[in-house]
Amino acid sequence: MDNTGYCSESFNSLQSGTSDEDMVEIAGATLDFSSTDDVPPLDRDYSSGGSYGAGPNGVPKLMDLLDEPVPGVGTYEDFNTIDWVREKSKDRDRHREIATKSKESTWALLKSISDAFSGWLLMLLVGLMSGALAGGIDISAHWMTDLKEGVCLNGFWFNHEHCCWNSNETTFQERDNCPQWKSWAELIVGSNDGPFAYIMNYLMYVCWALLFSFLAVSLVRAFAPYACGSGIPEIKTILSGFIIRGYLGKWTLMIKTITLVLAVSSGLSLGKEGPLVHVACCCGNILCHLFTKYRKNEAKRREVLSAAAAVGVSVAFGAPIGGVLFSLEEVSYYFPLKTLWRSFFAALVAAFTLRSINPFGNSRLVLFYVEFHSPWHLLELIPFILLGIFGGIWGAFFIRANIAWCRRRKTTRLGHYPVLEVLVVTAVTALLAFPNSYTRMSTSELISELFNDCGLLDSSQLCNYANVSVTKSSSDALPDRPAGHDVYTAMWQLSLALIFKMLITVVTFGMKVPSGLFIPSMAVGAIAGRLLGVGMEQLAYYHHDWVIFRGWCSPGADCITPGLYAMVGATACLGGVTRMTVSLVVIMFELTGGLEYIVPLMAATMTSKWVADALGREGIYEAHIRLNGYPFLESKEEFSHKTLAMDVMRPRRSDPPLSVITQDGMSVEEVESLIAETSYSGFPVVVSHESQRLVGFVQRRDLVISIENARQRQEGVVSASRIFFTEYTPPQPPNSPPPLKLRGIMDLSPFTVTDHTAMDIVVDIFRKLGLRQCLVTHNGRLLGIITKKDILKHMAQMANRDPDSILFN
Amino acid sequence: MDNTGYCSESFNSLQSGTSDEDMVEIAGATLDFSSTDDVPPLDRDYSSGGSYGAGPNGVPKLMDLLDEPVPGVGTYEDFNTIDWVREKSKDRDRHREIATKSKESTWALLKSISDAFSGWLLMLLVGLMSGALAGGIDISAHWMTDLKEGVCLNGFWFNHEHCCWNSNETTFQERDNCPQWKSWAELIVGSNDGPFAYIMNYLMYVCWALLFSFLAVSLVRAFAPYACGSGIPEIKTILSGFIIRGYLGKWTLMIKTITLVLAVSSGLSLGKEGPLVHVACCCGNILCHLFTKYRKNEAKRREVLSAAAAVGVSVAFGAPIGGVLFSLEEVSYYFPLKTLWRSFFAALVAAFTLRSINPFGNSRLVLFYVEFHSPWHLLELIPFILLGIFGGIWGAFFIRANIAWCRRRKTTRLGHYPVLEVLVVTAVTALLAFPNSYTRMSTSELISELFNDCGLLDSSQLCNYANVSVTKSSSDALPDRPAGHDVYTAMWQLSLALIFKMLITVVTFGMKVPSGLFIPSMAVGAIAGRLLGVGMEQLAYYHHDWVIFRGWCSPGADCITPGLYAMVGATACLGGVTRMTVSLVVIMFELTGGLEYIVPLMAATMTSKWVADALGREGIYEAHIRLNGYPFLESKEEFSHKTLAMDVMRPRRSDPPLSVITQDGMSVEEVESLIAETSYSGFPVVVSHESQRLVGFVQRRDLVISIENARQRQEGVVSASRIFFTEYTPPQPPNSPPPLKLRGIMDLSPFTVTDHTAMDIVVDIFRKLGLRQCLVTHNGRLLGIITKKDILKHMAQMANRDPDSILFN
Repeated sequence: MDNTGYCSESFNSLQSGTSDEDMVEIAGATLDFSSTDDVPPLDRDYSSGGSYGAGPNGVPKLMDLLDEPVPGVGTYEDFNTIDWVREKSKDRDRHREIATKSKESTWALLKSISDAFSGWLLMLLVGLMSGALAGGIDISAHWMTDLKEGVCLNGFWFNHEHCCWNSNETTFQERDNCPQWKSWAELIVGSNDGPFAYIMNYLMYVCWALLFSFLAVSLVRAFAPYACGSGIPEIKTILSGFIIRGYLGKWTLMIKTITLVLAVSSGLSLGKEGPLVHVACCCGNILCHLFTKYRKNEAKRREVLSAAAAVGVSVAFGAPIGGVLFSLEEVSYYFPLKTLWRSFFAALVAAFTLRSINPFGNSRLVLFYVEFHSPWHLLELIPFILLGIFGGIWGAFFIRANIAWCRRRKTTRLGHYPVLEVLVVTAVTALLAFPNSYTRMSTSELISELFNDCGLLDSSQLCNYANVSVTKSSSDALPDRPAGHDVYTAMWQLSLALIFKMLITVVTFGMKVPSGLFIPSMAVGAIAGRLLGVGMEQLAYYHHDWVIFRGWCSPGADCITPGLYAMVGATACLGGVTRMTVSLVVIMFELTGGLEYIVPLMAATMTSKWVADALGREGIYEAHIRLNGYPFLESKEEFSHKTLAMDVMRPRRSDPPLSVITQDGMSVEEVESLIAETSYSGFPVVVSHESQRLVGFVQRRDLVISIENARQRQEGVVSASRIFFTEYTPPQPPNSPPPLKLRGIMDLSPFTVTDHTAMDIVVDIFRKLGLRQCLVTHNGRLLGIITKKDILKHMAQMANRDPDSILFN
Repeated sequence: MDNTGYCSESFNSLQSGTSDEDMVEIAGATLDFSSTDDVPPLDRDYSSGGSYGAGPNGVPKLMDLLDEPVPGVGTYEDFNTIDWVREKSKDRDRHREIATKSKESTWALLKSISDAFSGWLLMLLVGLMSGALAGGIDISAHWMTDLKEGVCLNGFWFNHEHCCWNSNETTFQERDNCPQWKSWAELIVGSNDGPFAYIMNYLMYVCWALLFSFLAVSLVRAFAPYACGSGIPEIKTILSGFIIRGYLGKWTLMIKTITLVLAVSSGLSLGKEGPLVHVACCCGNILCHLFTKYRKNEAKRREVLSAAAAVGVSVAFGAPIGGVLFSLEEVSYYFPLKTLWRSFFAALVAAFTLRSINPFGNSRLVLFYVEFHSPWHLLELIPFILLGIFGGIWGAFFIRANIAWCRRRKTTRLGHYPVLEVLVVTAVTALLAFPNSYTRMSTSELISELFNDCGLLDSSQLCNYANVSVTKSSSDALPDRPAGHDVYTAMWQLSLALIFKMLITVVTFGMKVPSGLFIPSMAVGAIAGRLLGVGMEQLAYYHHDWVIFRGWCSPGADCITPGLYAMVGATACLGGVTRMTVSLVVIMFELTGGLEYIVPLMAATMTSKWVADALGREGIYEAHIRLNGYPFLESKEEFSHKTLAMDVMRPRRSDPPLSVITQDGMSVEEVESLIAETSYSGFPVVVSHESQRLVGFVQRRDLVISIENARQRQEGVVSASRIFFTEYTPPQPPNSPPPLKLRGIMDLSPFTVTDHTAMDIVVDIFRKLGLRQCLVTHNGRLLGIITKKDILKHMAQMANRDPDSILFN
């Protein structure tokens, strides 16, 4: 493994070192990987069921009786795809066994009840742990962000807001300047005024930012290379059945939690929302090890991970329903109804845990919770749709630019200096961000300020409208007024902030620090929305006699809410980047709590998705999955080409015939040489080479382990021993070595399709059943094999993409 | 068809007349049905693609060229299951064709764009139509319910509330007695006081109720037998791929809309929520005929119907998100993400259409919308869980009692007098309901009153607390107070109402009028909840020094909200009956609009589901599906028995071998005699009888139509003509009749499993892919066939249920 260590590259270098799922070269490359320095030794405990010791070329460590299943049979290697059908069947077997036993004794009945409730207990624990971690992350990030500007004299562990909590000042602005809170300039040069103090604050701001980001990138590189990025593309891939050992392990969790705080505090243009999903999934995966049911079954564990993804969004946005829908719509692959209900439970537990921690002191789960009550007019749909178009265009542009940049990082020398890259980007970000107050504050605060509707007491620059006679008394909402000088200044600053955020986010996402996309995308949209909103407001104020405003905007009435525009803009941009739909609208609905804004949000989301889809079909996560070559079979993409199974299957017409094993004709030696000569991950078993009638399918890994095991444990098994896959072994000649019976490791129900099956149906079967491979027959004869990778390559070919990018690039 | 005409029986008598999906006896029974008087002629237009004329034994009416597909091939008969794989593949073919053509001309490009947007347009129309219909139903039901009590002198078309709209009285109670509104006693005997007036009002109430219910049941019997019941069990079955022609037709829509209003107004213990789902689905189905894409494809049409189900719940409860989740969780079978997004759109459109109609005059979509703001205490979870247990027990009891009653109706002479039954139940309901003011009012109003938190201005009996010094000023919520005399009276009346509602609902649900279960279930729960809530409140008032109340309930403070208890109770009972989970919580969340009550609602829902599941595994809809013997493969029920495909497949060991067709060996005569002798719905095609190697599968219906067609259209095809399913027809001897080439109608990619495949995997495949049948092979030889019915029978057998109940009883 090389030392570039880029987020999007750490996998690729691994993969080119090891190999793909179906054509595994079991040369130890995969195993070697997990003992490199990048993955701490602890992580290796997370191999499924503890059977990792029985590596394909290694010696099985556990010695069982011959009748018992050979350890290691039925497990998976790293960077392999699981067999959903087999895993689910295994779980049903387990369930059946418990149900049968429970009738025998009270103890077994109790065990069966505890087994039934273990899923709920696990959900509770995932919710509690993720909620607590999210609370910790929020509080730490808040404190460390403020540390860049100054320190509290009452105790350095207080953040700015806490420090001034007991201050006696009345207005918010004055309270912010409480005497206990000292900026760095005040501490060092004794004054907060003058150019020297400004430079001193500037310097300290940049230094802290560099320190935080250096710590973040160093920790990631040293302890957990998987902790970088948002993690959502990888989690999508894992949920679809891929195995990446250590990706959801203890070390990743620890390092990701710490470095996430550091990265957010460093002021880089990134958010904590995406990584929180990764953190929650790590919690889910780790807690799975408490319960045999989930530890030993890859499919069951993925149900828990789907729920954990919902938990992550639930704590990130305080939106439990939105989180469940996000998991359903965006990340999950196999999402049975039982999981829906459990996810919802876990998401609620997490949200309430976070609420009881109360990280923001306002009993809200997010910094930018808003409550609007002003109505919107039907004509406002026009600017909302414009925002949708902006969001769509920006989303498509961002994805292209970011992917191009990430590809450049992978292919040029740029990728060899990850620490330097992070430091340079941090320095540029900090240097450019400090002078502009809207980029200096944390992005969440910025969004909060942009979403905020100017009330009577608001003293921020954005709300500094010229004071015309305020005639209204009861309502909190102010009537439309002409903008004051400060508002114009704010507009300029926001415009600059918009350009800055748009450009810096492109290079930030994909660096080797934890980085989420939600917050930067929302910030871009919120700025654009607020600008448009204020523009509309002023237009309505000065031209309230225009036809479009007449009867709706009269002077002294409140007709335009710029905060709502910011919200719609944020939704549109987030939608353009991620292509979320229902979940996005529901998350935003839960942020506002009002059903009346669903229509604007929906209009913007729909427009943004349509525009972005027209400019480029993939969302950012799919684009990163493809960039990294993960074997992910996208369920949203319809396969619409008229090819048949025989066009895709291997062997092709010019290739040598398929490597098969006969059910009773081969010796150990022959099978071993077949294994040595080929690199297929499994072999079909046929009646005879002449008839090619299919009997079953045997996994390469299982075959290797079983032969190895038999040679060591079973008396007299030598190279000349014959291997039987038949039910009854025929009587052997008296002098021949004892036969090897391997029917037990053969899959007696391999999936088959005929050679004339349309590929769209085959793709559907693979997606729905989660297959690894499928055999192709013609009139009952075995003809070839189609693997998941063949399908992905074929789909890439049909879409005129480079088919070799899958798993190899 | 007999004349019993009971809601749950109309199908069974049909089915025993016709037959099941897979072993169809095409003796014209099915076709005969649709020309009985019960289905108006108009409905027959809704056969898929208008190809109904080409019945299996009938003469194809359309004469096509030989090269073109034979009309009728690829369509389905009534009471058959569709082939999801084939339908989806057909749609992809259509899509591919449009995409290819769109590159050729601008006109084709425009057509392809309009095709892409037709789904959205359809959703818009479904939303608008359903919203408008729901508004009409609400308004009419409101007016007709009030008509039972009196009439407005300003115009008989005003309901009570509208009539007194402009009254000058200040309090609500006085406004209700406005002079323009006359009760029947006032009109007839001139006074509203005294026993005579009471009897007169009583009499009129009963008469109107009888009139409405008589009209409802007569209309249903005369015009649309499918309009009775809630429709949700049938819609679930249809969505899973079953075909019931006319169930979602014009007549059903018209009659269901009218009779729903009548049934609700008659005061029977039923609600409009379930039938609204049916009405929305009818709208969806009818509007599908505007677009070829949806008219011609059964799978695509089911996507629209899934969305329509969401629309139905959205307008019933004013809960668009809850509606989408209801469709996903409760009724849908195939729910791709695209449908999720479109359903959401349609649900929103419908909700906003309904809001702009504003049927209740409060800009809310339901009568019982509430807004609580009082917090709840953690200890209150104990009564909430008690309510959950009550809901679970009641749900399980209700399902058993209702199913037992419905079964009795089917098997005894009771079922022969549907009109009489409705009249008797209405008379009993009206006679018992009138004396008790809580049963006299409509059930929605009752729920609204029970959910309502007593404010300062409330003058209802339930809020008549003794007036201790009201010290609080600002908050709307009153502090806890001792109950006044009226409250105790109300408690007694509510207790009687509870018993009455519980018993009468059991006999009401399943009668031959449109009847929903949501509202009666919620009413039962709401009464129980309110009783418990008031009890808790008084306990807390008189014993506020108890440990559990200390520090939480002090005198003069507001600590218990009885309205919240009513709400939690309603949720628990509805959950116990329907076994909804997430969707139920979300619907209730949308009714209250506050995230803070999710935990109580969730605790009650979870408890209620667990308790109900422990007492009986099925929800009311599944129970009715099974009672009626629909071929529905429940996706929630895990199949956990260790049987293999060879145990389930037919032929069994003792049976004659499978009827197969050879690919080149049979004459028209032989095939026709095979068709005549057997009743299978399809035949596997094999290479030869000796090898039993599978080539493909041909549907009986397609085979019959094709041979019929060929005999009429193709020169020289006689009984001795040989049928070829091979790709190339071998040269025929000079004097033989011309061969018949039928490769085109053969499915070249039939699904196969091996005989050793575990049945749990087979069940999974059937569910996920939506298969009709699957062939079983052993070592490449065809061995047998498994149909959906075989699976359902096997599952019933394994669960110790009567396997013959499926489709036949």
